[in-house]
Amino acid sequence: MIDLYTWGTPNGQKISIMLEECGLDYTAHPINIGKGEQFAPDFLKISPNNKIPAIVDQNGANGPVSVFESGAILIYLAEKTGKFLPKAPHQRANTLQWLMWQVGGYGPMTGQFYHFKNLTGKPDFSDYAFNRFKTEVQRLHTVLNKQLEGKDYITGEYSVADIALYAWVKKGYELVPSCTSDLPAPHLLQWLNRVGQRAAVGRGMSVPAV
Amino acid sequence: MIDLYTWGTPNGQKISIMLEECGLDYTAHPINIGKGEQFAPDFLKISPNNKIPAIVDQNGANGPVSVFESGAILIYLAEKTGKFLPKAPHQRANTLQWLMWQVGGYGPMTGQFYHFKNLTGKPDFSDYAFNRFKTEVQRLHTVLNKQLEGKDYITGEYSVADIALYAWVKKGYELVPSCTSDLPAPHLLQWLNRVGQRAAVGRGMSVPAV
Repeated sequence: MIDLYTWGTPNGQKISIMLEECGLDYTAHPINIGKGEQFAPDFLKISPNNKIPAIVDQNGANGPVSVFESGAILIYLAEKTGKFLPKAPHQRANTLQWLMWQVGGYGPMTGQFYHFKNLTGKPDFSDYAFNRFKTEVQRLHTVLNKQLEGKDYITGEYSVADIALYAWVKKGYELVPSCTSDLPAPHLLQWLNRVGQRAAVGRGMSVPAV
Repeated sequence: MIDLYTWGTPNGQKISIMLEECGLDYTAHPINIGKGEQFAPDFLKISPNNKIPAIVDQNGANGPVSVFESGAILIYLAEKTGKFLPKAPHQRANTLQWLMWQVGGYGPMTGQFYHFKNLTGKPDFSDYAFNRFKTEVQRLHTVLNKQLEGKDYITGEYSVADIALYAWVKKGYELVPSCTSDLPAPHLLQWLNRVGQRAAVGRGMSVPAV
């Protein structure tokens, strides 16, 4: 049994999708970040950076293992199950580089874009900051669309890279028309549709049920 | 032989430190990002996101392997050499979560802080954006300082987590007094000093020599 501490954000959905894809038993514990539950002392013990998601694998190799940071959790689960992260060095590096592209680039930059976009019309709005992140998000969509040309999945084969990016791109591309209108990205849209049709992805996207 | 495409930034230095620590043969190729050399077609072939660092391992398992994204390169080199990333699941997850904390949090957030700080006095300066990232960088320093309490290295044992964070924290903590003056972080400072005294770290920090 794996305890998943999560909320309905792309970083949380990455992990519920992965757990569903791997067919692992888990219990989702909602951490309502709107109410500040991520600062509760019990949660900080497993997630000292006070962010969701975090897991505790009650059946770890030598007892319970707790892991925070969604990218680290994906690798942990992939190595536990032998799924969605190739072992051969060439394919493995290819998968990990796109996983890291989400963790270090797409996630943080689209996250900042939403934040500054939501300030529109408010005194703190900064035209410079809004355009800085909008331009970067558009650039990232162009890079991903190019990578997906001629491929069903990001590295060819379905992997943690697709799982890490799906919920983020769904939010970043579909819900932000100001980013999408100038930029046709047919390969990215086909990929979003393809991944979204997977039953495990559908189940994972609706966790936690609150 | 490993070809390293890099520049004197924390993400580049992470990899030269790792190569030096592992004792691997490598040739550093400077990619002058001030001159836009990261957009050259030959570089984009190995780094489609047009960022440094990237490597080509000419002695990959089945021929040359190219890898971009500094976090993915660290894992690739750790798995190639068996160094600085434990194999046991518990210690491995602990190391990877702090590596991801740098890749997805400390790096992007301090990067944005420098950017908005450098706008000080210019028309595009945003007090809101400056304070947003300053507050986050201070919070991250508090989290890391707490993690280092009672430990020589981030997870106890020297690892890719220390290698990933050293160059970033050196820049983020020492060169940004406005972030440090309010916040004593003795464990973080001792760790910076401890890691900085390693000969391989000193050599890695001065790559590329231009």
